[in-house]
Amino acid sequence: MTLEEIIGVFAGIFTTIAVLPQIIKAVKTKKVEDVSPVMFGILCLGVGLWTVYGIFKMDWPIIITNGISFIFNGIMLGIVLNSQSKN
Amino acid sequence: MTLEEIIGVFAGIFTTIAVLPQIIKAVKTKKVEDVSPVMFGILCLGVGLWTVYGIFKMDWPIIITNGISFIFNGIMLGIVLNSQSKN
Repeated sequence: MTLEEIIGVFAGIFTTIAVLPQIIKAVKTKKVEDVSPVMFGILCLGVGLWTVYGIFKMDWPIIITNGISFIFNGIMLGIVLNSQSKN
Repeated sequence: MTLEEIIGVFAGIFTTIAVLPQIIKAVKTKKVEDVSPVMFGILCLGVGLWTVYGIFKMDWPIIITNGISFIFNGIMLGIVLNSQSKN
């Protein structure tokens, strides 16, 4: 692996897993009042489009990292919307 | 522009601007208690590395979108850390 490939792999891992601490915090505290659902809606749209882009190009790293991001951000969006519908 | 290029441009725009509604919400409400600073720390690290990756490849779309993301996520991280240091 070249240095730029290693940097790309770590960049992909970090941007993909970034939302996990937010999901864990939300589940633990059961509080998401200050979290913007619009942010996670736009993120889902964005990484969803990146996944489609990856499918067009048959580029597996783009498909996998953005596909996983779509699921993670979708879970967080669901948590926020579910909490709002209860209040 | 091809269809995949158009999808790529919108994907880039959405993932880059996604954090703005969260910044606006935080500034308006002055409340960020439920927001995970770890999420924005990891995001800064990830998009920062994507920017370095783009510089290695001299790929301007990667440099510009992730460079802007780095600034936006850095602002949000600053807001959260600043709020925590006051409490």
